[in-house]
Amino acid sequence: MRVLGVDPGLTRCGVGVVEGVAGRPLTMVGVGVVRTPADAELGHRLVAIEQGIEAWLDEHRPEYVAVERVFSQHNVRTVMGTAQASAVAMLCAARRGIPVALHTPSEVKAAVTGSGRADKAQVGAMVTRLLRLDAPPKPADAADALALAICHIWRAPAQNRLQQAVAAHRGKTPIASKGRTA
Amino acid sequence: MRVLGVDPGLTRCGVGVVEGVAGRPLTMVGVGVVRTPADAELGHRLVAIEQGIEAWLDEHRPEYVAVERVFSQHNVRTVMGTAQASAVAMLCAARRGIPVALHTPSEVKAAVTGSGRADKAQVGAMVTRLLRLDAPPKPADAADALALAICHIWRAPAQNRLQQAVAAHRGKTPIASKGRTA
Repeated sequence: MRVLGVDPGLTRCGVGVVEGVAGRPLTMVGVGVVRTPADAELGHRLVAIEQGIEAWLDEHRPEYVAVERVFSQHNVRTVMGTAQASAVAMLCAARRGIPVALHTPSEVKAAVTGSGRADKAQVGAMVTRLLRLDAPPKPADAADALALAICHIWRAPAQNRLQQAVAAHRGKTPIASKGRTA
Repeated sequence: MRVLGVDPGLTRCGVGVVEGVAGRPLTMVGVGVVRTPADAELGHRLVAIEQGIEAWLDEHRPEYVAVERVFSQHNVRTVMGTAQASAVAMLCAARRGIPVALHTPSEVKAAVTGSGRADKAQVGAMVTRLLRLDAPPKPADAADALALAICHIWRAPAQNRLQQAVAAHRGKTPIASKGRTA
């Protein structure tokens, strides 16, 4: 299973691709950061994130995309940007028919460190160990993206059975639009 | 000047196209709602909103897109969805090189009713009067989208001068992406 993890953000959007299955050693396929300038217009920043995510999807052809679930308990301005960047990542994946999974920060931390309240250094250390890297990926957003991908691979067996059942029940998603033109 | 106003939302995304210039009677070109089913997966809902906005851009070729600026002072779940839907609308416009303007709800209310604290009925009544319609557009999201477009047309003379100065200063927005591949 090949998974692209995305730690969404407008300024730094962490991306990491991991391949493997639960119970076997995992392999890092790629890791990086999509950056957009803080002084650019919001629309342009979203286009830049779209181009960045598209490039990663083109190059690595993941079967799943795992995105951090956004909560608004943090700084208001940051959360808005995070929600908008995550929307672009989900849109890029869903447009290609790639299943999108959302994992909360504590789910990710618990998956890779055993504790939902682990700090960034601990997550970085475990990502380094689990992927047999020479050093923790920098910046932290890149390490978090890899942790998201690892979390998805390990949680996938149960989640996929559930998703398939729900998808079979639902069928395709229709788009309803009504309007009038003067 | 032709403006597409977007009142962003995952369940109902109001869209309205208004043509005109400040100081002259305005014309409604089209109004509607892009809907997505609440039980669909988030990624699919964002794709449906993208398709809906793209269809409105294709049909009406607006010169500007005005989107409601999202604040997180309201319900947390709703705000996340609103931020994500607005990101898709901004992305669609920016990808085509159409300038995107953000207006706050109180700016819109003040523009069309004279009061930043006007209620939905008052906004609907003024939109109906200003666009010389037979009845207020339904649902309220559609009326709000028209109000956004009107607000943009009336505020545009000052805003455009500012935007042009900023754009001239900035030049084009670069995308920076760094990564390594194992």
